[in-house]
Amino acid sequence: MENITLVKVGGKIVEEEASLKQLLADFSTIKGKKLLVHGGGRSATRIAERLGIATQMVEGRRITDTPMLEVVTMVYGGLVNKKIVARLQALGINALGMTGADMNIMLSDRRPVTTIDYGWVGDVRRADGDALARLIDSGVVPVIAPLTHDGNGNILNTNADTMAGETAKALAKHYRVTLVFCFEKDGVLRDENDDASVIPSITPEEYAQLRAEGIVQGGMIPKLDNSFATLQAGVDEVIITKASNLHNLSLGTHLR
Amino acid sequence: MENITLVKVGGKIVEEEASLKQLLADFSTIKGKKLLVHGGGRSATRIAERLGIATQMVEGRRITDTPMLEVVTMVYGGLVNKKIVARLQALGINALGMTGADMNIMLSDRRPVTTIDYGWVGDVRRADGDALARLIDSGVVPVIAPLTHDGNGNILNTNADTMAGETAKALAKHYRVTLVFCFEKDGVLRDENDDASVIPSITPEEYAQLRAEGIVQGGMIPKLDNSFATLQAGVDEVIITKASNLHNLSLGTHLR
Repeated sequence: MENITLVKVGGKIVEEEASLKQLLADFSTIKGKKLLVHGGGRSATRIAERLGIATQMVEGRRITDTPMLEVVTMVYGGLVNKKIVARLQALGINALGMTGADMNIMLSDRRPVTTIDYGWVGDVRRADGDALARLIDSGVVPVIAPLTHDGNGNILNTNADTMAGETAKALAKHYRVTLVFCFEKDGVLRDENDDASVIPSITPEEYAQLRAEGIVQGGMIPKLDNSFATLQAGVDEVIITKASNLHNLSLGTHLR
Repeated sequence: MENITLVKVGGKIVEEEASLKQLLADFSTIKGKKLLVHGGGRSATRIAERLGIATQMVEGRRITDTPMLEVVTMVYGGLVNKKIVARLQALGINALGMTGADMNIMLSDRRPVTTIDYGWVGDVRRADGDALARLIDSGVVPVIAPLTHDGNGNILNTNADTMAGETAKALAKHYRVTLVFCFEKDGVLRDENDDASVIPSITPEEYAQLRAEGIVQGGMIPKLDNSFATLQAGVDEVIITKASNLHNLSLGTHLR
């Protein structure tokens, strides 16, 4: 099986010129087949504000009513995505910007209303690894915006980490997949105040231990749970690293 | 050679729910391989206004400074394009939204400044019919937004009629291409006040005559010049019709 590297970067990296430039330069040096999944929340918030649309977040998730859906569709699928695509093309990478609706690569269900109505937010039902693999095998580098669709004509705002994980799992049938989550820290830290305390590798057994000791806590828990779930579903390796270390994937925290 | 139908629709049709619904229903009934090129100017103007960005048009063309480039990138490449893609997917059509930057399908040069500086506006240098044909042959229906790129990392605002014509010419090597321009009128009219006066077909010789007689004039001249140029470059047929007649391509004006 051939290798593929799937990189997920958050909005902050792709929204500032200096970090975007560095990211794309580093991404372009990654050998072999690859794919980028990006966020864009800060730009969405900024454009929404300029349009007089209030941003409401619940537990870090954006409430997506109809006006906000228009904003995220514009910003993620247009503004952020096409800028990345044009910049990658200039670096000689045959990028293709996509949402889950494009070629039906990712279908979601609108999140059911419980105590909270998230609005037009999608929970992923299935990713089409076959369609993506055909594109990738033809030399295309997909650049995926955090939007999916419901199959009934509606775009759904979808978590980029989840989309990266689901895409990685769907591609695991075709490739040896390395999934790289770019974080603000250098990796999973043994001491959150010490950037030099990166834990270089974590097995599932070590993860259980790190949780029991309280070394891994808070927002890291769902991220690592999600990462280990992708490993169980056939992904070869998950790397948690800083975007600026993307040129050297031996750095960061490696989950196997 | 297999047939392909390339439909170009203006912003007005895709921006209103009733006409969009009708368009997509009609488009979905077109047999065989097909492709859609769309506009979106009214939405761009509307969003720009809400963002406090003034729209400036010169001879029907939008002056595209950097803030306006952000607007058209968002609106054409995101808002309008992804809505069409999601809706076509719901109709069982494997749509893929693209700009000229995506897979490098259309490269442009930024228009030189003469007496007017159009800003980030592109004049098409080349369309990649081979890349499009590979996608189309795999069952994909490209949905193309009126944006290209300059190969140096910049998106360029590009005329949708021109993109449709250049795409049709680039595909003529691979298919028998029918290029359909959807207008507000039923076709080229002998009497502009009489919608029933559609001229069913026009040859180049008849076109010269119609111009000499003043029957074809004004804004129709560049459109028909452009259409006849595509025929000379290998496109099989150009049809000028009303979007609501898309279900019956024997209507409208046929250029051969």
